[in-house]
Amino acid sequence: MQVLGVILAAGKGSRFKSEKPKVIHTLLGKPMVYFPYEALLSLDPIKVAFIVGHKKEEVISTVKGFPQADQKVVFFEQVNPKGGTGDAVRQALPLLKEHPDKVVVILNGDSPLIKGETLKEGLKKLIEHSLDGVIFTTILEDPTGYGRIVRDEKGHVVEIVEEKDASEAQRKIKEVNGGFYIFRVQPLLEALKELKPSPVSGEVYLTDVVKILHSKGYKVDTYQTPYWELLGVNDRRQLAEAEKLLLERKIENLQREGVTVRLPETVYIEWDIQVGRDTEIEPHAVLKGKTSVGENCLIGVGSILENTTVENNVEILPYSYISDSQIEEGCVIGPFARIRNQSHLKEECEIGNFVEVKKSTIGRKTKAKHLSYIGDAQIGDNTNIGAGTVFANYDGVNKYQTSVGNNVFIGSNSLIIAPRQLGDWSFIAGGSVVNKDVPPKALAVSRAPLRILEGKNPLLRKDKNS
Amino acid sequence: MQVLGVILAAGKGSRFKSEKPKVIHTLLGKPMVYFPYEALLSLDPIKVAFIVGHKKEEVISTVKGFPQADQKVVFFEQVNPKGGTGDAVRQALPLLKEHPDKVVVILNGDSPLIKGETLKEGLKKLIEHSLDGVIFTTILEDPTGYGRIVRDEKGHVVEIVEEKDASEAQRKIKEVNGGFYIFRVQPLLEALKELKPSPVSGEVYLTDVVKILHSKGYKVDTYQTPYWELLGVNDRRQLAEAEKLLLERKIENLQREGVTVRLPETVYIEWDIQVGRDTEIEPHAVLKGKTSVGENCLIGVGSILENTTVENNVEILPYSYISDSQIEEGCVIGPFARIRNQSHLKEECEIGNFVEVKKSTIGRKTKAKHLSYIGDAQIGDNTNIGAGTVFANYDGVNKYQTSVGNNVFIGSNSLIIAPRQLGDWSFIAGGSVVNKDVPPKALAVSRAPLRILEGKNPLLRKDKNS
Amino acid sequence: MQVLGVILAAGKGSRFKSEKPKVIHTLLGKPMVYFPYEALLSLDPIKVAFIVGHKKEEVISTVKGFPQADQKVVFFEQVNPKGGTGDAVRQALPLLKEHPDKVVVILNGDSPLIKGETLKEGLKKLIEHSLDGVIFTTILEDPTGYGRIVRDEKGHVVEIVEEKDASEAQRKIKEVNGGFYIFRVQPLLEALKELKPSPVSGEVYLTDVVKILHSKGYKVDTYQTPYWELLGVNDRRQLAEAEKLLLERKIENLQREGVTVRLPETVYIEWDIQVGRDTEIEPHAVLKGKTSVGENCLIGVGSILENTTVENNVEILPYSYISDSQIEEGCVIGPFARIRNQSHLKEECEIGNFVEVKKSTIGRKTKAKHLSYIGDAQIGDNTNIGAGTVFANYDGVNKYQTSVGNNVFIGSNSLIIAPRQLGDWSFIAGGSVVNKDVPPKALAVSRAPLRILEGKNPLLRKDKNS
Repeated sequence: MQVLGVILAAGKGSRFKSEKPKVIHTLLGKPMVYFPYEALLSLDPIKVAFIVGHKKEEVISTVKGFPQADQKVVFFEQVNPKGGTGDAVRQALPLLKEHPDKVVVILNGDSPLIKGETLKEGLKKLIEHSLDGVIFTTILEDPTGYGRIVRDEKGHVVEIVEEKDASEAQRKIKEVNGGFYIFRVQPLLEALKELKPSPVSGEVYLTDVVKILHSKGYKVDTYQTPYWELLGVNDRRQLAEAEKLLLERKIENLQREGVTVRLPETVYIEWDIQVGRDTEIEPHAVLKGKTSVGENCLIGVGSILENTTVENNVEILPYSYISDSQIEEGCVIGPFARIRNQSHLKEECEIGNFVEVKKSTIGRKTKAKHLSYIGDAQIGDNTNIGAGTVFANYDGVNKYQTSVGNNVFIGSNSLIIAPRQLGDWSFIAGGSVVNKDVPPKALAVSRAPLRILEGKNPLLRKDKNS
Repeated sequence: MQVLGVILAAGKGSRFKSEKPKVIHTLLGKPMVYFPYEALLSLDPIKVAFIVGHKKEEVISTVKGFPQADQKVVFFEQVNPKGGTGDAVRQALPLLKEHPDKVVVILNGDSPLIKGETLKEGLKKLIEHSLDGVIFTTILEDPTGYGRIVRDEKGHVVEIVEEKDASEAQRKIKEVNGGFYIFRVQPLLEALKELKPSPVSGEVYLTDVVKILHSKGYKVDTYQTPYWELLGVNDRRQLAEAEKLLLERKIENLQREGVTVRLPETVYIEWDIQVGRDTEIEPHAVLKGKTSVGENCLIGVGSILENTTVENNVEILPYSYISDSQIEEGCVIGPFARIRNQSHLKEECEIGNFVEVKKSTIGRKTKAKHLSYIGDAQIGDNTNIGAGTVFANYDGVNKYQTSVGNNVFIGSNSLIIAPRQLGDWSFIAGGSVVNKDVPPKALAVSRAPLRILEGKNPLLRKDKNS
Repeated sequence: MQVLGVILAAGKGSRFKSEKPKVIHTLLGKPMVYFPYEALLSLDPIKVAFIVGHKKEEVISTVKGFPQADQKVVFFEQVNPKGGTGDAVRQALPLLKEHPDKVVVILNGDSPLIKGETLKEGLKKLIEHSLDGVIFTTILEDPTGYGRIVRDEKGHVVEIVEEKDASEAQRKIKEVNGGFYIFRVQPLLEALKELKPSPVSGEVYLTDVVKILHSKGYKVDTYQTPYWELLGVNDRRQLAEAEKLLLERKIENLQREGVTVRLPETVYIEWDIQVGRDTEIEPHAVLKGKTSVGENCLIGVGSILENTTVENNVEILPYSYISDSQIEEGCVIGPFARIRNQSHLKEECEIGNFVEVKKSTIGRKTKAKHLSYIGDAQIGDNTNIGAGTVFANYDGVNKYQTSVGNNVFIGSNSLIIAPRQLGDWSFIAGGSVVNKDVPPKALAVSRAPLRILEGKNPLLRKDKNS
């Protein structure tokens, strides 16, 4: 069965108290409205209509970055911010009218927990039971505040009645509307035509569609899911709760695939992250963006990986922060290492304590283990960079590149002033300032002679004075 | 209705196994005994009596630091550590006798979860129902171990009966004493006079007051609250539990005000912290003391702010630790930055990886992005401080100041030996040791010439030897 | 009563999706199979038989590292990986036959939550009730999937029946088999002889022993424990759940002993850690291996201690990472300090921001507060090491030692090239490269003179050019 999707994304979300429209606030690195879209994608929809309104430019530009947005997504604007959900869906009429024989799945942009599998099950029920509509519902012990699913004596769904309009008997109904629906398009079109604004609020409610369908002899039933799957996010507290549920789902998937996660409640792993088996993630680690980690790695306590590729057998020791970089097999990073801006560490590198690597390539088995800044450098294999080394890449106006060959030894507290070339097997004596190129095999040294003035410790003199 | 407060703070808390008296152990940066005091303050009390005993000097000196302590707080000592709660309240007789027509609220110093609103509701009930006393109670499915609220057939409270003295029938009572009370002072004074020590323990129990009041025809009723609000803290496990509940309350307030908190269970935010809307707090952040953060800021993973003011639109990247400082609008800090001791960062500064700033002022748009120590310095605007720069402020005896002008360029691995003045637009060549003042627009350089000895890499020689 | 132990540790644990056998995956730093062994040790067993199979070398080498393994542990191999639990226990026949009059406790290697006290209680029941066997069981509201404990009308245990073999009535039984047993050896030997493989799976089930014992007139009863104590670990999700339960047990013990733990859900403390009273552990701290911390210490936010001894009154400020080292009384460490490889900090040292200490001894009251690397050094008392100092211990081939006396002042950005000796009261001027020994009381300085070229800031020239 081919489907259309409609995602309601026009609301302001004033309880967020935010400059940003609610549906683009993120969970695990994804805008909230991405999640219902992802669920819809699993049905391979013909098109997905986003109904936008409040700050529509921001929502549209966010949605355009989604996968397959070019082929799948169409936008419709709901001009009246108080039009209601029925008015919102009506904006998609041009799309719906093109596909009267199809089915449409209507989701809320602020309900990120709905699963693709659940939509599939609902769709299956629609088809197998020859229904015209399926309402996703849940059973609540205390249904106060929710729209109730009213059935006739045969059990057919008659209408959705809101709390305030419900009779005493109806208020006892425990099956409540989750706000997601599947409808056959033709019946929906008929019903949308008959929707009228509420005399009280002036809003047009999509829920009224159910009563109209029933009155026309169409068959609507429900598909029940756990409560949390239908959870709407109306404020930042609910944002945190929904994010926690998504995170548990994400981590459970990794665990089942053979990843050990220590203190999983303290680990933050965004939605797109991939991790290979026998990798161990220690407490407080944070994995963000498009990051993938290979097999048998260690992600140490509190380490942060962001848009980074880590190959197999890499050890990332605690409190390392790596972004937008590539780490090849067998590297040992950290603790307290900072690697960023398209750096590329080749096999078996060691980058240690308080070392920053920026936009640099580090060759195989090269080591920089302490207190160094390596910026805009191309470094060869088997090179040793001493503690306190700085690659000065900025002269106050421009940035320059330095290239260092294989098997180079750079002594501690050296300063390499870019642009510079250090040949293979060159040796920089500790404390040197390198402001010329150094040919292969050469020793380079800049050093004032050490003078030793016996008995001249100035502190002893001061002591005498005081 | 004007009220008096009494807070029982004499106990030792031996299950804490601590050198420190229990009630000054902290939760979210506040001594435990602060919380009932804060709740009382919301009633604008005439006076609050603290009953002190065990290590009273420590408790008194802590309480004297509380807001309005000068005007509101009086101390009374309970000399007998085994006197009991009745004996404790009796110490406040001098205060109570001054205000016989008022009302007194009696709280426990080890019950930090009580809310001011709850006290207000209890007081309202006392007034509206013309009661002489209100006991704060809760309903427990399993009341074992608690004092039960015994009522007569009309529902009037007759007495509080302890577990060990309770009849079979009384043990089934589920309403239990929370240990907080409101009494009209005159009836309480009458009852206190008649209290007698327990023949078993020798302690005088305040709970016996209820029976006495009833026998004299006074009316006592209860005000029920959720269990957790009455929670007493008797050991460090309960300290952690109570702190968790306070933290949830604190974070929920921030969320409702428009602050996004990621993984809120991992974030530690002390009681006095203020955060502006659209600010995002990442996992594992820690905000302590008198810290306030403006709007639209980022507090990165694991960052620590302590007694620090952060203005709007500031980005604090992961693992930065800022204490006792001021950060102006638009600054970018970290990751791994350490800023402390009354440092002041002006607008749009950038302080980066492994940089420590101590007791220094950093001018607008000035940058120190890597591996530097800036101590006791006044630095102007638009100045650039290269990687590995150290401001040496200590000569082994004293500390000295350095001042750096605007638009200065300090090359990497430079050492500035205080006291020093670097004029506007001065330029320090990388690797220099600056031990004289540098006038404006001057170039300063100390550098031994680089000698390049072709083929003289000593490692190659060693290889030959070996 | 003297006991034998049998621990089943032959399984593969394929749901772990791991190269490593399941039972050596760790919880709180201990292999899973250590925990049932520790519980058994509390009974002071004659011998403990480990039944090994899958990757037996790895399991054996792990178990050999356990306490008392030399005296207590014997290994038996189960050759048939599909032999079943009955076949596994039969491997221990040689041991069992040596002790027919004793009792054997049979545990699962993948059930780390069993407590020694529980085993003792079960053993007590066996003795006091003159039983021949005790099955550890629990009561489950929903027993689906578990083996049920079937009793006759007198309440005697008749058999353990598996879900698939259970009658409708038996499926309603809520007491389920936990998989741990105590048996008298002689009856068990008789029963093991009669065990037959399942006609369906070919496996020999140890649970069938119960039916056989009953048929022979032996008496078996159960000992009920909470569900979680019997929890088996079959995948990495359950590993995390079991670890969380162990961690709560560990932290609760510390709290009861007088340790304050902030946000305990975020703190990771391995099984062997000791902490003294009035020490405060801040959020996100990680304590690993054989670490002990004294009284009245602070373990700051996110600090990591690994195989380290910390004496009393030590302050470890946030994000310090100390491994394999010893920290004496009154030291102040961090924030962002890294101390490792058998370093030894004597009383009242201060090691500060971005300082790494490797395999070095630091004398009393010596300070290194900023951005330094101290490797392979012996440093005396009251010495001051300036910011940016590096001890260069590596010449590209070998590592060398440096020794520094008492009361030495090492100026900032100095480089000490090992092997070197700096005498007492020597003074190294900032920025020096020390490549000779320095006698006591001497001043050592290597410094090119600072040239100041007025008006020669090259950036001003560039500006003119551009």
